[in-house]
Amino acid sequence: MRIAVLGTGEVGRRLATAFAGLGHQVGLGSRTADNAEAVKWAEEHPGAAHGTFADVTEDAEVVVNATGGLVSLAALTAAGADGLRGKVVVDVSNPLDFSEGFPPKVVTFDGLSLAERIQAEFPGARVVKTLNTMTNTVMVEPGRVPGDHVVFVGGDDEAAKAVVTGLLGGLGWPAARIVDLGDLTSARATEQLMPLWLRLYGALGTGDFNFAVCVSGRS
Amino acid sequence: MRIAVLGTGEVGRRLATAFAGLGHQVGLGSRTADNAEAVKWAEEHPGAAHGTFADVTEDAEVVVNATGGLVSLAALTAAGADGLRGKVVVDVSNPLDFSEGFPPKVVTFDGLSLAERIQAEFPGARVVKTLNTMTNTVMVEPGRVPGDHVVFVGGDDEAAKAVVTGLLGGLGWPAARIVDLGDLTSARATEQLMPLWLRLYGALGTGDFNFAVCVSGRS
Repeated sequence: MRIAVLGTGEVGRRLATAFAGLGHQVGLGSRTADNAEAVKWAEEHPGAAHGTFADVTEDAEVVVNATGGLVSLAALTAAGADGLRGKVVVDVSNPLDFSEGFPPKVVTFDGLSLAERIQAEFPGARVVKTLNTMTNTVMVEPGRVPGDHVVFVGGDDEAAKAVVTGLLGGLGWPAARIVDLGDLTSARATEQLMPLWLRLYGALGTGDFNFAVCVSGRS
Repeated sequence: MRIAVLGTGEVGRRLATAFAGLGHQVGLGSRTADNAEAVKWAEEHPGAAHGTFADVTEDAEVVVNATGGLVSLAALTAAGADGLRGKVVVDVSNPLDFSEGFPPKVVTFDGLSLAERIQAEFPGARVVKTLNTMTNTVMVEPGRVPGDHVVFVGGDDEAAKAVVTGLLGGLGWPAARIVDLGDLTSARATEQLMPLWLRLYGALGTGDFNFAVCVSGRS
């Protein structure tokens, strides 16, 4: 698929690299056209592109929001409502406010999650929330963590969720471990998981972990 | 131990029954002295007591707050700061506001969790947050759910946490599955897990589940 990854931080580069490695046509987008990380990444990945948020979004089928949660609306606005229209927008970000130090606070938008806020701002986009409950290394290589840990998916567009489920499968997520939480309001639940993730990160001394859901009668 | 369980709802009765069955001296407390559920429960459990929040708290060593999260401060105020002083207060409640329907909202108290709010209100109490991330049947019988699912513990008083860890062990929780998240601010993280719990309850069609934490390098 043609995938635009917005955000040149660790998460964006990790996802862009994984998708490029799977044969997808990837464009890594940043605020500016000459972002050093994006230029370097594109040089290292023949066939991949880089450019502004709008540049990489224009011809993409899937747009991955891997920007920081507090700048995501600005990044998507730069990508442009026209560019996003009809496209699957995979929101993997978390709206964490570090301004008062660690641990950060999870920001809400008049009670809405960031994913819902994005959907409200860009009604033509088909927003799916996923992958935001784990560190980026686990996103692209679930096998590095033992056990039947899961990835959550939420969104209002079933066909868009099916596209995302396919992409997750490509990254190594077995279908049985992709948990569909329902509509996009479920992003409130997964974004609010961040405080527990951060606590466990502190308690375990590693971010290389993930959550599993154990259910009675299903082993 | 002498354990006061505050709250005669399903959670309170379940915990009171489990602790009584383990040989603890249990008092089930309610707002009024003649609460029908408490009277019935005490009749069914010879040796156990019932009474007002203050009655059962007076001689207890451990006080379990199993009241609804939005009335917990009132219940503990009725139990009395004098009665709570020096005691381990095990807060298993969640501050869920159902006033706008389902799913409920998790209430915070000027950014504090309910457990922290209780601690601030009763500085003489030794508050430990635990068991609030699962349904009551799993609390008292972890073996009913397969897998290495966990119970979280948080609190500022290490000795109090050790008492609670001992009680959890009695309920069937192996030490390796009791996860100490650190101080009582961690209750913000576990209380904010409720939205995800409620979503999974909807997606799975059962509350008989729990979370596990899978960690790289530890199987």
